Amino acid sequence: MNYRVVSNILGKVLLAEALLLLLPMTAALRYHESALPFLWTVLPLLIVGGALSAVKPKNSDLFAREGFVIVGLSWMLMSAFGALPFVLSGDIPHYIDALFETVSGFTTTGASILENVENMSRGGNFWRLFTHWVGGMGVLVFIAAVLPISGDHYIHVMRAEVPGPTVSKLVPKARKTARILYMIYAGLTLIEMIFLLCGGMDFYDALLHAFATAGTGGFSTRAASIAAFDSVYIEMVVATFMMLFGVNFNLFYFILLGQGLAIFKSEELRVYLITIAASVLLIALNIMGSVGGFAQGLRYAYFQVTTVMSTTGFATADFDKWPELSRWLLVLLMFGGACAGSTAGGLKLSRVIILAKSYLYELKQLILPTRVKRIWFEGKAVSDQTVRSVLVYFFTYLAIIGIGVLLLALDGHDMVTNLTASVACMSNIGPGLNLVGPTGNFAFFSVFSKLVLILEMLLGRLEIFPVLFLFAPSVWKKR
Amino acid sequence: MNYRVVSNILGKVLLAEALLLLLPMTAALRYHESALPFLWTVLPLLIVGGALSAVKPKNSDLFAREGFVIVGLSWMLMSAFGALPFVLSGDIPHYIDALFETVSGFTTTGASILENVENMSRGGNFWRLFTHWVGGMGVLVFIAAVLPISGDHYIHVMRAEVPGPTVSKLVPKARKTARILYMIYAGLTLIEMIFLLCGGMDFYDALLHAFATAGTGGFSTRAASIAAFDSVYIEMVVATFMMLFGVNFNLFYFILLGQGLAIFKSEELRVYLITIAASVLLIALNIMGSVGGFAQGLRYAYFQVTTVMSTTGFATADFDKWPELSRWLLVLLMFGGACAGSTAGGLKLSRVIILAKSYLYELKQLILPTRVKRIWFEGKAVSDQTVRSVLVYFFTYLAIIGIGVLLLALDGHDMVTNLTASVACMSNIGPGLNLVGPTGNFAFFSVFSKLVLILEMLLGRLEIFPVLFLFAPSVWKKR
Repeated sequence: MNYRVVSNILGKVLLAEALLLLLPMTAALRYHESALPFLWTVLPLLIVGGALSAVKPKNSDLFAREGFVIVGLSWMLMSAFGALPFVLSGDIPHYIDALFETVSGFTTTGASILENVENMSRGGNFWRLFTHWVGGMGVLVFIAAVLPISGDHYIHVMRAEVPGPTVSKLVPKARKTARILYMIYAGLTLIEMIFLLCGGMDFYDALLHAFATAGTGGFSTRAASIAAFDSVYIEMVVATFMMLFGVNFNLFYFILLGQGLAIFKSEELRVYLITIAASVLLIALNIMGSVGGFAQGLRYAYFQVTTVMSTTGFATADFDKWPELSRWLLVLLMFGGACAGSTAGGLKLSRVIILAKSYLYELKQLILPTRVKRIWFEGKAVSDQTVRSVLVYFFTYLAIIGIGVLLLALDGHDMVTNLTASVACMSNIGPGLNLVGPTGNFAFFSVFSKLVLILEMLLGRLEIFPVLFLFAPSVWKKR
Repeated sequence: MNYRVVSNILGKVLLAEALLLLLPMTAALRYHESALPFLWTVLPLLIVGGALSAVKPKNSDLFAREGFVIVGLSWMLMSAFGALPFVLSGDIPHYIDALFETVSGFTTTGASILENVENMSRGGNFWRLFTHWVGGMGVLVFIAAVLPISGDHYIHVMRAEVPGPTVSKLVPKARKTARILYMIYAGLTLIEMIFLLCGGMDFYDALLHAFATAGTGGFSTRAASIAAFDSVYIEMVVATFMMLFGVNFNLFYFILLGQGLAIFKSEELRVYLITIAASVLLIALNIMGSVGGFAQGLRYAYFQVTTVMSTTGFATADFDKWPELSRWLLVLLMFGGACAGSTAGGLKLSRVIILAKSYLYELKQLILPTRVKRIWFEGKAVSDQTVRSVLVYFFTYLAIIGIGVLLLALDGHDMVTNLTASVACMSNIGPGLNLVGPTGNFAFFSVFSKLVLILEMLLGRLEIFPVLFLFAPSVWKKR
């Protein structure tokens, strides 16, 4: 372990967080609220961050191991500090609750412990929804985009932070790749904000909901979430942008390069769009009786399918009251998530596709052992190593959800609550069913259960290994 | 596809079923009931079986493909005919219900559509519980043990019928292996029957419950299952034999050979015993408050853990009323099942162990790419091929359960009912939670849902591929 380089980058992460906090602080001042909760968070961040980043690395050796450790620790430290403004302002008095809300924000989960979000200060709510935007594309990618990073090994750090089974550089330099990603991200966010303003939202709501959509987070300034705006136009805009932010950002880069047609060659995108269309249709038919016709059914189904698949978690309807078929279909979609390389959570569709293909491969091999060729995905042969690591990822993912339910069960709530809470946090969605349904919240869980869910949110967002690594003693050995 | 050899063996299977039906027919006569329902089933079996087996194979080519097809079709035909006595005697008037009960019997699931089992005829109940014994070790293994089978390729058929990721011949000849397996099976069944007789059960109950335990089935002659006998002794005997029938039969063979100590080298057995001990302890502590003390807790927990892990499904307590931790732990144990090469269902522990090891392997490879060695299990290096097929099996297993729940949801019952019904049928356990809990039954499901569950039971017992194969067109091509 190259401790010096780890310390140096961790320091930069904390300095970046201090910088990012200036935005909600400005909002607080603008709405005549106290800036002190933010100021008292920025100061320790500057001191600790400054001290850590003052450690100059002797060499810039940075391998997968360091990448994982840096990402795992960065997210934990950022969350630990990021919870402070909520406690200091009195918005969320208990630290564990504030930590839950912050981790839920950064990991773009959107599960909330707030009973009434509309009592929050405006500065506090700004920070709350802004964490989605920061966590969506990742803070270490952000640092690469804005700070000079020595050496090109930094791709190991980005690889650990960007979701999906494989991460490819768009351009040879990690730094330039990071800049392009953030430009696309900010651009799309801006376009959504303009669309929302056109729908009659005020600037504050439009900006914050654009942040929350971009990160596929799910926090809202309103207790009733998007339903509070009572506008079909706003619902359709948000649903469409949730769908867009679930698309691999590399594809947007192709569009920028003028290779728009290339994106339709993407298998993952095709599966994504077909799954959305089929699920919307199925659910619309299933709920049309109870929501007043097929058109209304389509409206609710489109929003609900995009919110679940993109793992955002905004709500327009209490889908917990929908028929069992729709409810279970939504639970299944929760596992899959959207495309790799997007801001969405879940398993990622590319993994699901590779899983399905390995299954067909295995079946073919049993029938015709001699004729079997390789597994192909996105026009490339998939290595055995990738197939195996996807399969192992899937097993580990489910095992963590299962163990999570077991630990939550100690609280004694019902099984559907525990199961969907565990799935919703691990997949970074937010709401589940029953007690944690779209009209509920996570406040009733014990402190222990909240810590379990915090861990699940981090494991889900960072795709397990960067977090688990921190517990492996051999990782910490000096080289 | 060598159609002649498939036809020949299928004919023998039906003749064997006719032979096996003589036993419940004798029981019916002994209890002064009509033998006609059995006679009218035996006759068509003799005609169809005789005609099919009259087809003499031109060559004895028998590969994995034929093995799968023979096993898949055998189980479907046996179930289709085996359901007739229930319909003809009026015990179960509707054919789909009778088919559900028969498939549940042969697959040793033990899920029942009977509202009141004590209204059944004694001959009918004999057949019902005897199907567990027939299905437990497998009818094609039975045929190998009693009929002369030409060629040693028959191991492909046995491989498709015996549960577990790998099947090894105990002795070079498939036929002798089959005989040894059935001798151990019959011997253990007999010993359990004697133990039950000593506990005051009458001969009929003792024999039938020994059959049902041996196959790890779970049907009972009593509505209250084992609880009806109200005897701690009987509970402990049944629990212990459920545990024993969940052990790989190869290990009993080692004991017969006087190599008793060798069995403790088995990793799978160690994991099996440790998991039982740990789960019993945890559940006993969790339920002691509600069942009147730790000793009572141990009693119920020992029975419940062995019944779930061996996938038998006998009941002594309404565990559906236990605290959430115990309920969910039991659901997790449902997935795992017991050892490969036993009569139990579920994923099989050896698969779970290989899954867990691949996960650790993957983790190590990420930390220290250069130092990774192979995965070892039971003293042997596991081939990449085996690892991948186990991982694919796990994914397919879960996908089938998930799709099952989706189809069951069309009936509109609650999610815990649908989820646990799907798991309990796929894992061949029997009871689940809520409506299909230990005090409920499967009668309320629609015909469509019953067909879904029938398919799941067959997929679970035959380990997916023999059943799925029947739907692959390329399987049916002539060589």
